Amino acid sequence: MAKIDDIDKQILDVLIENTRTPFTDIAKRLNISAGTVHVRVKKMEESGIIHGSSLTVDYHQLGYTFIAYIGVFLEKTSTTQFVISRIKEIPFVTVAHITTGKFNIFCKIRAKDTTHAKKIIFMLDDIDGVSRTETMISLEESINDKKRLLHKVFQDL
Amino acid sequence: MAKIDDIDKQILDVLIENTRTPFTDIAKRLNISAGTVHVRVKKMEESGIIHGSSLTVDYHQLGYTFIAYIGVFLEKTSTTQFVISRIKEIPFVTVAHITTGKFNIFCKIRAKDTTHAKKIIFMLDDIDGVSRTETMISLEESINDKKRLLHKVFQDL
Amino acid sequence: MAKIDDIDKQILDVLIENTRTPFTDIAKRLNISAGTVHVRVKKMEESGIIHGSSLTVDYHQLGYTFIAYIGVFLEKTSTTQFVISRIKEIPFVTVAHITTGKFNIFCKIRAKDTTHAKKIIFMLDDIDGVSRTETMISLEESINDKKRLLHKVFQDL
Amino acid sequence: MAKIDDIDKQILDVLIENTRTPFTDIAKRLNISAGTVHVRVKKMEESGIIHGSSLTVDYHQLGYTFIAYIGVFLEKTSTTQFVISRIKEIPFVTVAHITTGKFNIFCKIRAKDTTHAKKIIFMLDDIDGVSRTETMISLEESINDKKRLLHKVFQDL
Amino acid sequence: MAKIDDIDKQILDVLIENTRTPFTDIAKRLNISAGTVHVRVKKMEESGIIHGSSLTVDYHQLGYTFIAYIGVFLEKTSTTQFVISRIKEIPFVTVAHITTGKFNIFCKIRAKDTTHAKKIIFMLDDIDGVSRTETMISLEESINDKKRLLHKVFQDL
Amino acid sequence: MAKIDDIDKQILDVLIENTRTPFTDIAKRLNISAGTVHVRVKKMEESGIIHGSSLTVDYHQLGYTFIAYIGVFLEKTSTTQFVISRIKEIPFVTVAHITTGKFNIFCKIRAKDTTHAKKIIFMLDDIDGVSRTETMISLEESINDKKRLLHKVFQDL
Amino acid sequence: MAKIDDIDKQILDVLIENTRTPFTDIAKRLNISAGTVHVRVKKMEESGIIHGSSLTVDYHQLGYTFIAYIGVFLEKTSTTQFVISRIKEIPFVTVAHITTGKFNIFCKIRAKDTTHAKKIIFMLDDIDGVSRTETMISLEESINDKKRLLHKVFQDL
Amino acid sequence: MAKIDDIDKQILDVLIENTRTPFTDIAKRLNISAGTVHVRVKKMEESGIIHGSSLTVDYHQLGYTFIAYIGVFLEKTSTTQFVISRIKEIPFVTVAHITTGKFNIFCKIRAKDTTHAKKIIFMLDDIDGVSRTETMISLEESINDKKRLLHKVFQDL
Repeated sequence: MAKIDDIDKQILDVLIENTRTPFTDIAKRLNISAGTVHVRVKKMEESGIIHGSSLTVDYHQLGYTFIAYIGVFLEKTSTTQFVISRIKEIPFVTVAHITTGKFNIFCKIRAKDTTHAKKIIFMLDDIDGVSRTETMISLEESINDKKRLLHKVFQDL
Repeated sequence: MAKIDDIDKQILDVLIENTRTPFTDIAKRLNISAGTVHVRVKKMEESGIIHGSSLTVDYHQLGYTFIAYIGVFLEKTSTTQFVISRIKEIPFVTVAHITTGKFNIFCKIRAKDTTHAKKIIFMLDDIDGVSRTETMISLEESINDKKRLLHKVFQDL
Repeated sequence: MAKIDDIDKQILDVLIENTRTPFTDIAKRLNISAGTVHVRVKKMEESGIIHGSSLTVDYHQLGYTFIAYIGVFLEKTSTTQFVISRIKEIPFVTVAHITTGKFNIFCKIRAKDTTHAKKIIFMLDDIDGVSRTETMISLEESINDKKRLLHKVFQDL
Repeated sequence: MAKIDDIDKQILDVLIENTRTPFTDIAKRLNISAGTVHVRVKKMEESGIIHGSSLTVDYHQLGYTFIAYIGVFLEKTSTTQFVISRIKEIPFVTVAHITTGKFNIFCKIRAKDTTHAKKIIFMLDDIDGVSRTETMISLEESINDKKRLLHKVFQDL
Repeated sequence: MAKIDDIDKQILDVLIENTRTPFTDIAKRLNISAGTVHVRVKKMEESGIIHGSSLTVDYHQLGYTFIAYIGVFLEKTSTTQFVISRIKEIPFVTVAHITTGKFNIFCKIRAKDTTHAKKIIFMLDDIDGVSRTETMISLEESINDKKRLLHKVFQDL
Repeated sequence: MAKIDDIDKQILDVLIENTRTPFTDIAKRLNISAGTVHVRVKKMEESGIIHGSSLTVDYHQLGYTFIAYIGVFLEKTSTTQFVISRIKEIPFVTVAHITTGKFNIFCKIRAKDTTHAKKIIFMLDDIDGVSRTETMISLEESINDKKRLLHKVFQDL
Repeated sequence: MAKIDDIDKQILDVLIENTRTPFTDIAKRLNISAGTVHVRVKKMEESGIIHGSSLTVDYHQLGYTFIAYIGVFLEKTSTTQFVISRIKEIPFVTVAHITTGKFNIFCKIRAKDTTHAKKIIFMLDDIDGVSRTETMISLEESINDKKRLLHKVFQDL
Repeated sequence: MAKIDDIDKQILDVLIENTRTPFTDIAKRLNISAGTVHVRVKKMEESGIIHGSSLTVDYHQLGYTFIAYIGVFLEKTSTTQFVISRIKEIPFVTVAHITTGKFNIFCKIRAKDTTHAKKIIFMLDDIDGVSRTETMISLEESINDKKRLLHKVFQDL
C-alpha cells in the first residue's frame, strides 16, 4: 500500500481540485518551496499513485447529450477478452467492466442523440461473440465526481 | 454548439493526453507562441467547453480494489432529488444517474473490499425514501478511458 | 358485426389511403354518383364503423424526436380507473392500456428529448396510487401504419 | 423546425378534430377565405408537417377485439432491418419499434380473438432470425388519442 | 399407501375412461358379478382412493373461451389462508396453489372473454392482503387429461 | 352457444356433484321420469356440452404428493405442436398450455417426490426442440374444484 | 428411517458439538462405559446415520475471504451429470445442486478475492455444455451452522 | 495469514479426511511422535486455523429429504441484523448470507418434505421486517464437500 505523508496529502488536495495548478502556486499556499512540490509530485508519479490526469468537458456543449449503460451477453465467456478488445475500438464506450449478475460485460456510452445511440448499440451487437445487449438510458447524470472520493482516500491513508 | 478551430483542436489533443503539459511545451510542439496557447485555453475555459480536470490515480495501490454498480429503487419518485442530495454525502459514490428501466437511480461505488462495500450499500439503503437496492459487482474494470472519446469528439467538431 | 357490401369496401379503400379525398373524386374512380358515396359514408358513420379520422404529422419536424413505452405499477388495482383519468390529463401520453403481465397500465409517450421525457415520466410517477414505473425507449419507430390492417379487415368482411 | 403562424394553428385545431372538415366550413369558422385555408393547408402539406390522415374505426364492431404487445428477441441484431421488413408483411402488426431494454423489436398487434392472436404470434416467431417472443395482452385500451398531443404541440410552436 | 388388487385395477381402468359405466357393464367385461364390482368400488370409496367424480364439459360451447394463469403476490404471507378462502368465493378460479418461486399463490381461471377476464383479475386484486397479480394467458389448452396419469398410477401400484 | 332449459340445469346440478348418481335417483329428486332424465342427458352428450366424466382420486394416498408447474422454452416456435405431441407421451403431465408471456408451453405435473419430479423434468428437457425449462413447485393445492364454476356456468346460461 | 435410543441421542449431542471428543470423556459425562460408547457409535456408523466428520476452519485466516453463489445455465439438460462431474474437479466449488427455477445447477464457491473469483467463474463458464452463469456475492456469511439442525433432528427421532 | 509447515499440512490432510483419526494413528502414518501431533494440532487450534469439527450425517436416513434455497426481501435494510438473529432461532436454516443482487438475505434450509418446507418458509415470512421470500428447490445435492477445498488451501499455503 502506498505511503504518503502530510505534505503529500496537502499537495494532492490542491491537485484534486485542479490538476493544472502551477507548482509555484501550490508552494505558496503550503508555505514550502516549489522544488519540494516538484520532488513530491514526481515521487508520487513514479510510485504510480498518480498516473495521469484527464480533462473535464461540458458534453452538452459538445453535442453529446445522451448517456446509456449497456449490458452485454456473450455466447461464450471464453471470448470475453476478445470482445473487450473490440469494444475498445469504439470511442463512445468510455467504461467497460466484466461483471457478476446477468451481464458478462457492462458498458457506459456517450452519444449525441437517440439515433447515434442506436448506431453505437448496433456496433456492440455486431461484435463476434456478442449474443445480445440490454440498454438502460440515463435521464440525468446527477453525480459524476471522483474529487469527493479522492480527498477521502488521501485523508484516510 | 461550441465553435473551435484547428489550433484549438491541436491544443486539446495535447491536453487530453496530459492536462498538466506546460503551455510552453504545447507552444513548441504546435509551433505557435505560448501566449496563443494561453489565450486559446482561457477562451475554451470561459466558454465552458473545458471546465476542469481530474487526477487519475491507481486505486489498487490506494487500497480500493472493489467496484460495484448499485441500482436504487425509491418508494416515491418525488423524493428523487432529495435522495440524490443524500447520496452526494457518500464520497464512495463517484457516479449517479436517474435512469429508465427498473431502477430509479443507478450508482457506481468504489470500496476497499467486500466488508467496506457492505457498509456503503447499507448507507444507501438507509437513506429515507430508498426502498431497496440491487448490487452488481465488477470483476475487472477493463476500460475506463474517456481520452478516445474526447479525441473523437474534437476531431468531429 | 358490421355489414358492408362491395361498394362500401371500395369507398373505404380510398378513404383509408386519404381520408380527405373529396366524394366527387371517389365517385369518379368507382363510377358511381357522388350522392351514393355520400349516403354510403354517412351510413357507415352512423353505424359507427367509421367514427372519425386523424391527422398524420411529422413529429420530427415538430421537434418531438423521442418515443418511450412506460409500464406503470399501481399500489392498489382498485385505483386503475382513477389513475387512467389522471393520465388522460397528460397530452404526451397518446396510448394507454390496462394489461396482463407485470404492469398494471402500459403507456406510449412522445417527448421532445431526454429531459422532456424525464419530466413526463415524473408526472406519471407523481400520480396518486402509482408506485413505480419502468421505461423502455424507442430507438426507431419502424412501423406505425394501420392502413395495411384496415385494407385487410374490410377485404375479409 | 417547422414555422407556422396563428392562422395555421387555428386551421390545424379544426383538422385535428376532423380531418374531413370541408375548407369552406373552416373558412367560415375562422372568418377567412376558403382560398386562404387551401393555400395554408397545401403549404403545410408541402413542408411535410402534415403528411396524411387516417380513418378511425370501431375495431370491436369489425370483429377485432384483441390487442397485444409483443416483444421480439433476435438471434443477431444485424438482422433487425430484415426482420422489420418481414414484419411489415403481416398487416395485423400496426406498430413496431426498435427498442432499448430486453427486447430487440417491440410490436403492437390487433387480432380477432385468442386463436387469431396465436396465429399472428406464430407468424412472428417463424420469421428467420427471430429467436423468441414475449406477449403482453391488453385487457382494455383506455387511451388511444393523439388529438390531445397535436393540439398541445401546435399551441407550443 | 393404498392396497388394491388386479380386479380393483381392472375396474378402475374402466371407470377412468367413463365414471358413469354401469356396474353391470363392468361386471360383464371383467367376467365377474355386479355385486363384486359394487363391493370393490365401495371399498375404494371408503378407503378414500376414489373420492368423487367430475363432469367434463365443452367450455367453448358454453361460452368460456378464455383461460389464464394468475400469480398473486401478498403483502404478508400470514394472510395466505385468508386470501385462499376469499379466492374460493370466485367460482371462475378452478385451481389455486401455494407455490415456491416469485408468487405466493398461483391460480387458474376460466372466463368468457378478455373483458370478463379483466373483471375476474380485478376481483383477485381487490382481495384484502393481495398486493399485486401477474397474468399469463393460454393461447391453447393442448392437454387437459388426467386419464393417462390415473392408468399409470394404478398400473404401478 | 348451447341451449338448455331449467330441467337440464337441475339435472346438471346433480351430475356436477356426483356424475355417478343413478338416473332413477335424479328422477325422484326432480319429480320427473327416469326416461326424461335419460333423454335429456343423452341430448346434452350428443350436443357435446357434456363430453365425459373423470374420477377424482386421493393422490396422497396413491403416493403422488408432489405437484409442479413447468414453463418450457422452445428453440423454435415452429416445433410447438411436435413438442406438445411428445409431452402427451409423458403421463405425469396432466395439463399443458401454449401461453403468452415468457414461456412457450406451460405444464402441470404430478410426481411421487422430488426425485421422481427430477426425472419428469429431465424427460421434458430432453424432448427435441426444448431449450430450457423453469419449475415452480406447489407447496399446497388449496383449490382444485370446477364444481363451483360449472354450477355458475349452467345457472347463467 | 433410522432407529436410535436415548443413549444414542446423548452421545450424538456430544459429538455434534465436537466430533473429536474422546469416548472416555463421553462415557464419563453420560455415566456409561467407554465400551458402550464405542459400540453405539460403531453401530450408527455402520447403519450410515453418521458417515463422517469434517474440519471447521477459519477461512479468513487462510486467505479465503470471498464467497459467491453461482447459477449455471446449460445448453442441454442432458449434459447435467457430465457438467457436475467437471465441476467436481474445481476444488473451490464446495456445494452444487440441481435446482428448480431458472438455473440448471446452483453452486457455492469460496475464493481468495475478486480476481480469484473471476478465475473460478471463468472455469465454470468454460465447461462444455455451460451456456451462461449468473453470480450473487455474499457480503457476510451470517449463519453456517448445522449443529442447531442436528440437535433438533436427533431430539425429534 | 496463517503460517504452517509441512508436518502441519500432513496432519491436516489426515484430519480433513476424518477428524476423529486418533493422534497415535496420525503419528504412526507420518512417522512422528504422538506428542508432536498433539502439540501441532493444539497450536493450530489456538491460532484459530482449526476451530472445530462437524458430524456428517445421512439426511435421507434421518427423514430430511428436502433442501431449498430461500431469498429473503426485507422492508428496510436497517433490520438486517435483527432478522438474521430471528432466522438463527429456526434450526432448519443451516446457512444464511447477506448478499448482493436482488435478495437481502439468502438462506439454505433442510426439511422433511414439501409440507414441512412450507412451514419453514412461512416461519421466515412471518419474521418482522421480512416483506417477501422466493424459494428455489434442490432436486439433487450433487456436491457437498469441502474436503477438496481444504486439501487445496493447505497445499497452497
